[in-house]
Amino acid sequence: MAKMKVGVAGYGVIGQRLADGVALQGDMELVGVADVAPTLPVRALHETGMPYRLFTAVPEKKNLLTDLGIPVSGTLEELVQEADIMLDATSAGIGAKNKEIYQKHGTKAIFQGGEKNDVADVFFHGYANYEKGVGADYLKLTSCNTTGLIRTIDAIDRAVGVEKTAITIIRRVADPGDYHRGLTNALEVAKAPNHQAVDLMTIMPHVDATGILVHTPVTHGHIITPVVTPKKKVSEAELEEIFRAHPRIRVVSLDEGFLGNASLFKYARDLGNPRGDMYEVGLWRDTIVKSGDDIMFAINIPQEAVVIPENIDAVRAATKMQTTRDEGTAATNNYLKMK
Amino acid sequence: MAKMKVGVAGYGVIGQRLADGVALQGDMELVGVADVAPTLPVRALHETGMPYRLFTAVPEKKNLLTDLGIPVSGTLEELVQEADIMLDATSAGIGAKNKEIYQKHGTKAIFQGGEKNDVADVFFHGYANYEKGVGADYLKLTSCNTTGLIRTIDAIDRAVGVEKTAITIIRRVADPGDYHRGLTNALEVAKAPNHQAVDLMTIMPHVDATGILVHTPVTHGHIITPVVTPKKKVSEAELEEIFRAHPRIRVVSLDEGFLGNASLFKYARDLGNPRGDMYEVGLWRDTIVKSGDDIMFAINIPQEAVVIPENIDAVRAATKMQTTRDEGTAATNNYLKMK
Amino acid sequence: MAKMKVGVAGYGVIGQRLADGVALQGDMELVGVADVAPTLPVRALHETGMPYRLFTAVPEKKNLLTDLGIPVSGTLEELVQEADIMLDATSAGIGAKNKEIYQKHGTKAIFQGGEKNDVADVFFHGYANYEKGVGADYLKLTSCNTTGLIRTIDAIDRAVGVEKTAITIIRRVADPGDYHRGLTNALEVAKAPNHQAVDLMTIMPHVDATGILVHTPVTHGHIITPVVTPKKKVSEAELEEIFRAHPRIRVVSLDEGFLGNASLFKYARDLGNPRGDMYEVGLWRDTIVKSGDDIMFAINIPQEAVVIPENIDAVRAATKMQTTRDEGTAATNNYLKMK
Amino acid sequence: MAKMKVGVAGYGVIGQRLADGVALQGDMELVGVADVAPTLPVRALHETGMPYRLFTAVPEKKNLLTDLGIPVSGTLEELVQEADIMLDATSAGIGAKNKEIYQKHGTKAIFQGGEKNDVADVFFHGYANYEKGVGADYLKLTSCNTTGLIRTIDAIDRAVGVEKTAITIIRRVADPGDYHRGLTNALEVAKAPNHQAVDLMTIMPHVDATGILVHTPVTHGHIITPVVTPKKKVSEAELEEIFRAHPRIRVVSLDEGFLGNASLFKYARDLGNPRGDMYEVGLWRDTIVKSGDDIMFAINIPQEAVVIPENIDAVRAATKMQTTRDEGTAATNNYLKMK
Repeated sequence: MAKMKVGVAGYGVIGQRLADGVALQGDMELVGVADVAPTLPVRALHETGMPYRLFTAVPEKKNLLTDLGIPVSGTLEELVQEADIMLDATSAGIGAKNKEIYQKHGTKAIFQGGEKNDVADVFFHGYANYEKGVGADYLKLTSCNTTGLIRTIDAIDRAVGVEKTAITIIRRVADPGDYHRGLTNALEVAKAPNHQAVDLMTIMPHVDATGILVHTPVTHGHIITPVVTPKKKVSEAELEEIFRAHPRIRVVSLDEGFLGNASLFKYARDLGNPRGDMYEVGLWRDTIVKSGDDIMFAINIPQEAVVIPENIDAVRAATKMQTTRDEGTAATNNYLKMK
Repeated sequence: MAKMKVGVAGYGVIGQRLADGVALQGDMELVGVADVAPTLPVRALHETGMPYRLFTAVPEKKNLLTDLGIPVSGTLEELVQEADIMLDATSAGIGAKNKEIYQKHGTKAIFQGGEKNDVADVFFHGYANYEKGVGADYLKLTSCNTTGLIRTIDAIDRAVGVEKTAITIIRRVADPGDYHRGLTNALEVAKAPNHQAVDLMTIMPHVDATGILVHTPVTHGHIITPVVTPKKKVSEAELEEIFRAHPRIRVVSLDEGFLGNASLFKYARDLGNPRGDMYEVGLWRDTIVKSGDDIMFAINIPQEAVVIPENIDAVRAATKMQTTRDEGTAATNNYLKMK
Repeated sequence: MAKMKVGVAGYGVIGQRLADGVALQGDMELVGVADVAPTLPVRALHETGMPYRLFTAVPEKKNLLTDLGIPVSGTLEELVQEADIMLDATSAGIGAKNKEIYQKHGTKAIFQGGEKNDVADVFFHGYANYEKGVGADYLKLTSCNTTGLIRTIDAIDRAVGVEKTAITIIRRVADPGDYHRGLTNALEVAKAPNHQAVDLMTIMPHVDATGILVHTPVTHGHIITPVVTPKKKVSEAELEEIFRAHPRIRVVSLDEGFLGNASLFKYARDLGNPRGDMYEVGLWRDTIVKSGDDIMFAINIPQEAVVIPENIDAVRAATKMQTTRDEGTAATNNYLKMK
Repeated sequence: MAKMKVGVAGYGVIGQRLADGVALQGDMELVGVADVAPTLPVRALHETGMPYRLFTAVPEKKNLLTDLGIPVSGTLEELVQEADIMLDATSAGIGAKNKEIYQKHGTKAIFQGGEKNDVADVFFHGYANYEKGVGADYLKLTSCNTTGLIRTIDAIDRAVGVEKTAITIIRRVADPGDYHRGLTNALEVAKAPNHQAVDLMTIMPHVDATGILVHTPVTHGHIITPVVTPKKKVSEAELEEIFRAHPRIRVVSLDEGFLGNASLFKYARDLGNPRGDMYEVGLWRDTIVKSGDDIMFAINIPQEAVVIPENIDAVRAATKMQTTRDEGTAATNNYLKMK
């Protein structure tokens, strides 16, 4: 069977990881990646011998790359023509513009959480609403926090039902290497409810969600503490089992040495994972507590890589490689070696 | 009427502020403060001309102070004899030892949150259980987070009743100037439930409380996001009014420029408050949201100064200066110019 | 003798402290301060009962203030007319525009380090070139790092002569309370030589200076480590004496408990200094070392307040209140209680 | 030819990287690694299928590992017997104890910078004094800062001679994942001169060195700004060439997007380097400046991995695999793909 041809637009934090993720899928072919300028990721691509073909997103600026000896395999439009589907990981707002090129050539596309919802036909999460994305032309993925959060809420929902949730997001403020944004010795409060709660309700309309988000001056991993009202009583031990059964949730504990988000980042590096990345949400078993019949727990969101599996799911759904949630996510998990 | 004579043991972050707070009470007299070594606060006391008398907590080490020309007015034991009541703000564990001296001389004492509960007869909060402390010999105050949190939970409880609460504490990890502890680019998760939830239940036994605490690398102000199940329905607007009516809660908003804990610290400095301190809990009106009939909001705990008013309340209760919550807290608030 | 009438334009981090500094001068009168919007400092001014009169810098936006009940005493232009001299602490670039108003009314003005050099007739430092500023209409002050650095280099220069210096600036990246800029878990390198070295050479043209600046994610106090080539040999002990003799240099040591910039900030708060400010540069005696005949040491620059004394000096020089460095700086030091 | 058999004691931050580095050497065989407890690195070794054999450093605690199903191949003493030479990366002080085992079995050993100098016969740096280590039984490596710094000072020294240097070390305070130490919103000054300057003089006794060290709250990469007095005049351009010619120095620039230590860490991850590590010192060409005839520049020290090449050099020298600096370092560089 011919492999599905996938292109990646935008070779930044997410784009690099999408490219790596696609390259790991035995049933997909990474056609290439597109970017504009000789950013550090593009320089690294060059220094490592161009494992992926690079296309220029702005043809008239091609010389920014070629002047440095970086080979350019064509334009974004040419990449779009070669591809069956595009993963668009450009900066917020650019995706909406790129959509015109995708439409012109009848190429499907997946957009990231930073784009406006109306860029896509379906607001998608691999585990929560896979079937909605099947055959769709334009999908938008949830952002990193929402993606990870929904994994856990959906898991509880499928097991015992979820009525409502009130979440606190302790957000990392910048990625490692970011110099264009940051926070120094300050916690920053955002207007409530946060967009992640609103997004969760769009994906899971039968759940009532709200929450408060606080930015913190760290770079590796958000921590979220949802308070969840389940429809049926559930014990701490049952909850732990629900979480352990999920291929994209990694149950950890303080005793093992996982003291916080930095431990999980360190562990991913110790595992030798490329870029020190982790696809799984970390969930501390020591934090699972009950408030009456409500439940509460803490999860870690590795913001750089967490959305990769659900993006791959989206490729599978949109192109009908697999038409059910179980088959689609299983294929992704298999190639990404999750569980 | 003779003023109540108050001594302070331990002249660190809390001890300095207790001394200042007592000095502001028109009906109290600060007898003096006790410490051991020429720490920065003691050096500052010296440089500013000894506004408070200093007693040595370890007589045989008096020369640590006198060798630097710092005048010593006597020993801790002498301070205890002069005082009607001691505010003990020594390091955790020392208070229990000092209690022997207090007992020997029949001097009442107030201990801080770091001491074990059994050091005291009553675990005290000025607003939540003032009457329990009336006439007691030994009181222990709640810690900074619990003190500020209880102000809000107690306010809701008195208005509409509180059934349960699930709290997330986003904890500052060190005080400004701390070099002996710190966290760098990491969030640290603590075993749940946190002690603040347990302490809240000790003070307010009719409320079920649990929660998760995460340490963050900042120095000014914890942020807490409680999810509260009230006994009667209450609207966001009613809640705001409940909070605004409390002399020790300052309702702020993002629009006004209060973006997080650092804004409140800056504002306290801009106000010209001594040491840049603030006694009030900050509460963001933009964060008051509902989750079904539950309510959620975010508060800021200025950890260095927040416990001062409740400590003063404790002096009033223990010594029967005022025998009711309303009179006791009103006197404290009046001298500290709160509302 | 009539007091010199001083106005302050811009009531932010520096403007607040300039106003406080002027208010402390027995021979000056603070006419008022000007700003545009209800920022936190303006709200604090209001909450504390308007100790200073407030003028609006943009008359058509006066309602931003009056709508909140904040009394406005007039316009910036009216303030300029009342004042003999203006201290301009507006954002970089605004000072140059305000200069038109100052010129229109023949009011002298002092600009801060953020303005371009050509806004002023003289680039000024109270200790290094006081006499150049005597009688001048428009002076520009050095920025915080340069101001503090020059205090030490000038002190060495007057004692033993300075041939050259190579400085490393370990820069705090934001002020306490800043949310519009910040750095998270990153050191940022600036193009060398840094502007502080260039500025030093403008003020002290007989000294060759260069240096490297690195931004660090902290909020209280830059640390500078100059390597200085003196014209005459000087011992570590002699250097310490030179520094101790300077009213605006505070010699501290690790043994005393001054472990870094955070200790000095804490100490200023412990002293009860308004806003927790310190005018002096901290200098660690434990860091004075020799490299051959060159000398090296570390100083702390309290960036919020360090320029206040030299600004006051500038008022004295420009208005000829004192016409010599020794008289001018002595008057400033006396009112600010330095030494 | 038989491969040299190398064991690694201590499987922490450095030990993991030493093991990886040895495994990359075509002429060495990694016999195994030794540790005590199921730390995160040991858990990662297990999760990845035990690519290296694990030995227990404390036989009576073997069950700490085996109880978790982690296979143990023997004891540290058995590892020492199998190995020709040990790389000891245990915590400071343990190496000295382990030495007894090494001596008992006549196994050579390399110790890290944290051990006391007298643990070894030679204080070693691959580029600066390779020949001193040839045939030695016990070598001690310089610490991370000193190792990186000496690469640059030695390079200048061999080109134009170095008379003296005064260095400022802007030190990262903790490694990624560290929770047992940290600094929050503070710079910490150390007593001068720092040990790195003293160590440099031990390795390069003809150079006079001093310096000041300041700890900063970041986790990736120290930055050092040496001021160097060369024996012969050298221009900025010549210096850049000297640095570019060095296989273990990577010359970067701000224009390329390398804005600080975090950019270099990000770039190493973007390169796909295992653990996101970099062996090279980064050196900013934009920071090379002259102070009279002295020179100044800024380098980045990737503290987790920088010492690996010099450790491998030490194995080569001690075991006489190569007996000259040029051959020894070239072999290491070749296998580590440096230049």
